[in-house]
Amino acid sequence: MSNERFETGKQTFEKITGDVGKKFLENLRTVAPDFADYLVEFPFGAIYSRPGFDIKTREIITLSSLATQGNAAIELKAHIKLALNAGVTREQIIELFMQISVYAGFPAAVNAMLAAKDVFKELDRKK
Amino acid sequence: MSNERFETGKQTFEKITGDVGKKFLENLRTVAPDFADYLVEFPFGAIYSRPGFDIKTREIITLSSLATQGNAAIELKAHIKLALNAGVTREQIIELFMQISVYAGFPAAVNAMLAAKDVFKELDRKK
Amino acid sequence: MSNERFETGKQTFEKITGDVGKKFLENLRTVAPDFADYLVEFPFGAIYSRPGFDIKTREIITLSSLATQGNAAIELKAHIKLALNAGVTREQIIELFMQISVYAGFPAAVNAMLAAKDVFKELDRKK
Amino acid sequence: MSNERFETGKQTFEKITGDVGKKFLENLRTVAPDFADYLVEFPFGAIYSRPGFDIKTREIITLSSLATQGNAAIELKAHIKLALNAGVTREQIIELFMQISVYAGFPAAVNAMLAAKDVFKELDRKK
Amino acid sequence: MSNERFETGKQTFEKITGDVGKKFLENLRTVAPDFADYLVEFPFGAIYSRPGFDIKTREIITLSSLATQGNAAIELKAHIKLALNAGVTREQIIELFMQISVYAGFPAAVNAMLAAKDVFKELDRKK
Amino acid sequence: MSNERFETGKQTFEKITGDVGKKFLENLRTVAPDFADYLVEFPFGAIYSRPGFDIKTREIITLSSLATQGNAAIELKAHIKLALNAGVTREQIIELFMQISVYAGFPAAVNAMLAAKDVFKELDRKK
Repeated sequence: MSNERFETGKQTFEKITGDVGKKFLENLRTVAPDFADYLVEFPFGAIYSRPGFDIKTREIITLSSLATQGNAAIELKAHIKLALNAGVTREQIIELFMQISVYAGFPAAVNAMLAAKDVFKELDRKK
Repeated sequence: MSNERFETGKQTFEKITGDVGKKFLENLRTVAPDFADYLVEFPFGAIYSRPGFDIKTREIITLSSLATQGNAAIELKAHIKLALNAGVTREQIIELFMQISVYAGFPAAVNAMLAAKDVFKELDRKK
Repeated sequence: MSNERFETGKQTFEKITGDVGKKFLENLRTVAPDFADYLVEFPFGAIYSRPGFDIKTREIITLSSLATQGNAAIELKAHIKLALNAGVTREQIIELFMQISVYAGFPAAVNAMLAAKDVFKELDRKK
Repeated sequence: MSNERFETGKQTFEKITGDVGKKFLENLRTVAPDFADYLVEFPFGAIYSRPGFDIKTREIITLSSLATQGNAAIELKAHIKLALNAGVTREQIIELFMQISVYAGFPAAVNAMLAAKDVFKELDRKK
Repeated sequence: MSNERFETGKQTFEKITGDVGKKFLENLRTVAPDFADYLVEFPFGAIYSRPGFDIKTREIITLSSLATQGNAAIELKAHIKLALNAGVTREQIIELFMQISVYAGFPAAVNAMLAAKDVFKELDRKK
Repeated sequence: MSNERFETGKQTFEKITGDVGKKFLENLRTVAPDFADYLVEFPFGAIYSRPGFDIKTREIITLSSLATQGNAAIELKAHIKLALNAGVTREQIIELFMQISVYAGFPAAVNAMLAAKDVFKELDRKK
C-alpha cells in the first residue's frame, strides 16, 4: 500500500471536497472500494496536492474539462460546488461556460449552464 | 454588419494573438472569409473582450478544453503560445495537462504534453 | 452592442424556433442573460440567417451533428421539433439517424431514435 | 432481403441477449422497424456470429467501448447484464471500469461503475 | 454470404465513390478483407441504397457527422470529394462547416475547413 | 514518495512494455518528469499490476478504449504492439476493431485498422 500518498490524498480530498466528496466516496466505495482508494490517492494525493496552481485555478481547469466532455453531469455539479467553495463566483462559473461555447459548441455550454442553475437553486434552498 | 463587435474583436484578437493569430487568420480567410470574420467577432469581440477573467485565466480555460477534446492539435499548439504570452509558465502548462489526465485520461494528457514539447522546442530554436 | 446582428437573429430565431425556442431562451436567460443574447446573435443572427442552405437543410445538418455528439438530449429533442416544422418528415428523421449509425455507431443512432420517439409521442398527445 | 444474415443474426441475438434484447428490440421497432432489422443483421448476424472471440471477450470489448464513450447509459446497462450472462463476474466488470479510468478519465470510469451498481441492485432485487 | 445486399452495395458504392472509394477499399482489404465486405454491404448495400434521401443530402449528413467528430480526417476528405460529385458546391461545404462551429465548436469547424482547402487545392492541381 | 507502488509499477511497466515503453517514457520524461513517474505508478503500479484480468485481456480492453476514442494514434500503435506481445493475434486485433465499428462507427474502426496495418508492416520490416 502506498500509505503516504493515500494519507496526503485523504487530507487534500477532505479539505477541498468536504461533505460533497464524503457522500460521493461512500457511494462509490459500495461498488468499487479499491477504486475509491485510487481516486483519493491519484487525483488528490498526487495531482491536487501539488503546488503550481491554487485550488481555485484547479477547479477552473476541471470545470472546463468536464463542460467540454458534456457527459459527466454528476461530476460537473459536484465541481461547481467545489469551485464556489474555492472562491470562484457564480458569475465566473457562467463566464467560464460561455467561453466553452467557442471550443466545444453551444450545446455543451448550455448544458453546463443549466447544471449550474440547478446547483445554484439547490444552494439557495438550503440557506 | 456588426461593426462595433468586429472592431472590438479585431483589437482583442491582435493584442492576444499577435503574429500567431495573423497567419492563422490569413490562412483561414483564403477558404472561409466570412467565417474568419465571425471568429474575430464572436470569440474575440464577444467572449475574450469581456471582463470576468483576465487573459491568463482565459488561456488556462482554453488549454483545458482543447486538451480534453484531444483532436485539435493546431489550435492547442497556438494556444500554448498564447498562454505563454499571457504569463502562464511552461511548468504550469505541463501541470495543467497533468490534471487533464484525471478527467480525460492519460492519452489526452500525454498528447497535449508532446504538443507542448514541440512548441517549447520551436520557441527555443527561434531565440 | 451589435444591434443589427441581434435584431436579425431575433427575427430568424422567432421564425424558426417559435414557442420551443421562446421557453428555452427564457430559461437560459435566468442563469446566463448575456449568453442568451449571444445565442440569438451568433447562431441565429449570423449562421441561420445566411443564404446557402434553406432551413430544412440546416436542421438536417444540426440533427446530424447533435446525434453524433450523443450527449445533447435537450437540444436534440428541440431540433427534432424544429426539423419537423421545417418540413423534414418523421420518416426522414429516423432515416437520418440510421445513417448516423455508420459514422457514430449504433448506440448514438439508437439514442437519437428513442429521443425522436419521445418527441413524436408528445406531439401526438397534443393533437 | 439478406435472409441468411438476418436469420443467423436472429439466432445469435436471441442466444446472447435473451429477454434484455427482446424488449429493447420491440421498443426500437415501434419507431425504426428497418433499423431494428439492420441491428439484428449487422452487429449480430455479421460481427457477433464470427469466431475469433468468444462472447465473453466480445462483451468485454463492448463494455470498454461503451464506458469510454460515456454517453450510452442504456446500452451500457444492457451490456453489463449480457456480460454477466456470458460469464464475466461482477468483480471483473468493476475491474474493467477501473482500467477505463486510465484511458478515458475518472468521470467516465465512475459513471460506468454507478451504472453497474444500479444493474447489480436490480438483479439482486429480482432474486 | 448475404449476396444480394453485397451486390446492391457494390453498385451503390461504385456509383457514389468512384475512384476515391476504389483505392480506399483496396487499401482496407489488404488488412481487413471481411470488414471491407461489410463496409460495402452495410453502409452502402443497406443505408446509402435506401430512398428517403438523395445522395446529395446523404453526403451533407455525413459531412456534418464527420466534422463534428473531428478525428476522421481521411474519411472527411474522401466525403468532401463525394459531396462535390453529388452536387454540393464548394461554398456550401464551407457553409456547412460554419454551422458546425455552433454545435461542435470553432476548432472542429476550422479543422474541417482546412481539410476542405486541401481537397480543393488537390482538385485544382489535377485540372 | 510512494516508493512501493512506483517499484511495482516499474517492474510491471518493463515486463509489459519492453523497448516500446522505454523510449516512450524517456521522451515523456524530457517534458513532464513527474507525470512520467505517475504514469508508472498509477496505470502500471496500481491498475496493470492487479489480478482480475491477465495482460492479454487488459490489452484487449485498452485497444477497445483507444480505438473508440479515435484520437490517440501514438498510444494505439504502442498498444497494438503490446497486445501482440501479450498473445493477441493480428487476426484478433482486426477482429476487435471490426466490433468497434458497431459501437463507435466505421471511421473509428477503419482508422484503427490502418494504424494496425502500419504496425504490422513495421514489424515485418524488422524481421
